[in-house]
Amino acid sequence: MANSVWSEKILQLLRRMNNFYVPGSCRANCFRFEIDGAQVGWIPPHVAALLSRYPDVFSPPHGGAVSLCHSLDSYGRRSEAVDAVLQTLRQEGSLTCLRGWRDEKYSVMSKFSDPPLMWMERAATSLFGVKRYGVHINGYTVSDSGEVSMWLARRSPTKQTYPGLLDNVAAGGLAAGVGVKHTLVKECEEEACIPAAIAEKARPVTTVSYTYVDEGEVFAECQFAFDLELPLDFKPRVGDGEVQDFYLLPIDKVKELVATDDFKPNCAMVVLDFLIRHSFIEPDTEPCYQEFVAGLHQTLE
Amino acid sequence: MANSVWSEKILQLLRRMNNFYVPGSCRANCFRFEIDGAQVGWIPPHVAALLSRYPDVFSPPHGGAVSLCHSLDSYGRRSEAVDAVLQTLRQEGSLTCLRGWRDEKYSVMSKFSDPPLMWMERAATSLFGVKRYGVHINGYTVSDSGEVSMWLARRSPTKQTYPGLLDNVAAGGLAAGVGVKHTLVKECEEEACIPAAIAEKARPVTTVSYTYVDEGEVFAECQFAFDLELPLDFKPRVGDGEVQDFYLLPIDKVKELVATDDFKPNCAMVVLDFLIRHSFIEPDTEPCYQEFVAGLHQTLE
Repeated sequence: MANSVWSEKILQLLRRMNNFYVPGSCRANCFRFEIDGAQVGWIPPHVAALLSRYPDVFSPPHGGAVSLCHSLDSYGRRSEAVDAVLQTLRQEGSLTCLRGWRDEKYSVMSKFSDPPLMWMERAATSLFGVKRYGVHINGYTVSDSGEVSMWLARRSPTKQTYPGLLDNVAAGGLAAGVGVKHTLVKECEEEACIPAAIAEKARPVTTVSYTYVDEGEVFAECQFAFDLELPLDFKPRVGDGEVQDFYLLPIDKVKELVATDDFKPNCAMVVLDFLIRHSFIEPDTEPCYQEFVAGLHQTLE
Repeated sequence: MANSVWSEKILQLLRRMNNFYVPGSCRANCFRFEIDGAQVGWIPPHVAALLSRYPDVFSPPHGGAVSLCHSLDSYGRRSEAVDAVLQTLRQEGSLTCLRGWRDEKYSVMSKFSDPPLMWMERAATSLFGVKRYGVHINGYTVSDSGEVSMWLARRSPTKQTYPGLLDNVAAGGLAAGVGVKHTLVKECEEEACIPAAIAEKARPVTTVSYTYVDEGEVFAECQFAFDLELPLDFKPRVGDGEVQDFYLLPIDKVKELVATDDFKPNCAMVVLDFLIRHSFIEPDTEPCYQEFVAGLHQTLE
């Protein structure tokens, strides 16, 4: 792929993954989702219309915001009341995303540094534009002569989301109340059979954050990225069936792949960040260098 | 310094360095600075008022923008016409920043990836909110036992800007038409007597970008950051007199210092980014981790 074609593909990826911030996006029509006056997400109009049927849980839209009713004044009460609404909507079957119900509780908070205000089923978070946090691991090797290769996973063809696409060696969402490193070690073990003794050597390096709209749902996500240099004689193995195969690829091949549709988009962003941090992309030869960096680290509003 | 006090100081630094983006900033009153329909900066109202005296160079404000006159239809014509205005304003002496005239030509462009539309004297760029690009080098050592220390410079007490404050081991602005790595090697040599053979080993790792308003001027800046591991037996030496001294400090001491007023603010940001990339800050113990990362990499609008 010619350099300029590659750069344009990467810019397209970053624009798509940040399309919520673009003037003219659906953001103007979304309601702020507020709990106790603090914004915790964005609710698209069609979701707000559905929620208006549950006035004991969601106050009607006011001043551009949909709020949880003030009577729901604790973590437990809020979580249970919203979960009951979501279970009803799930049974009605009109919201596609709820068919992917996972029984995974995500924390709902204004900022990562604030205490959670409630939990919400993972599959429902995009209906409320609630920020989701996860962890992604760049698993790589360095040969004796210094050549870098990266382990990539190919997602199972039966995965609900992005089946068959390339992924980081391991990744997972942060469930309510569970630490970042703890989640990393668990996902490495479950998805790639990487033993804890190796996974614990992973080093935190940055976050990759973005907000996009897809089919009327809002995805506001922050991935904590880790680098994990794997021993040359170690091979990840398929664990819980979320992955069909692992490949060890030279870094130039990986660079080519991140600009293709064969990659799950947010994983391509995590790898792009790796390529920048490890100097496989240089500002004197990549005119869009700064746009790439800024596009990988957008503020979650 | 307690962990939470340190985090709050860092957040304050990042908010100050991104204060142009905050609702209620002077951005609402600034005029877009446009050349041939492309925005290249932001002009504060008091500067726009001065420029209205030169209608052959600057078209009067229209639709929230001040434009260069269309008759100035080449790189050379635009640069010379604006320079003549700036020389006049400099002689009048009313604009403090022009007292720091440096005879350094900066490229003016809409994006770093676009061809420059003109050059402008460095000291004048903040009157027009023109994006400035520079290079900053994290010079560090790794002991045999793996302990990381960082070389910091203390700026000369006679420097025009930020005299006496802590700085990266070397840094400099990108002059029109000069490459990033070339500038790095030159600044390493001139400021810190780091020979080219060592400086060339510096590795590009990211950009740090921010836009702030200070005393009615707009600073939109992007620093290309490089990591340079220095040999344990190498000592930077004062070169061109921009620096009074160099210190090699343990990384924990450096971490403490970035949260103090003893650091030039944008250099503190470059070091903060180093601390994150090198895992001296971790997401499980630093609740503001994601806010730090996002605050270091704002889009230049």
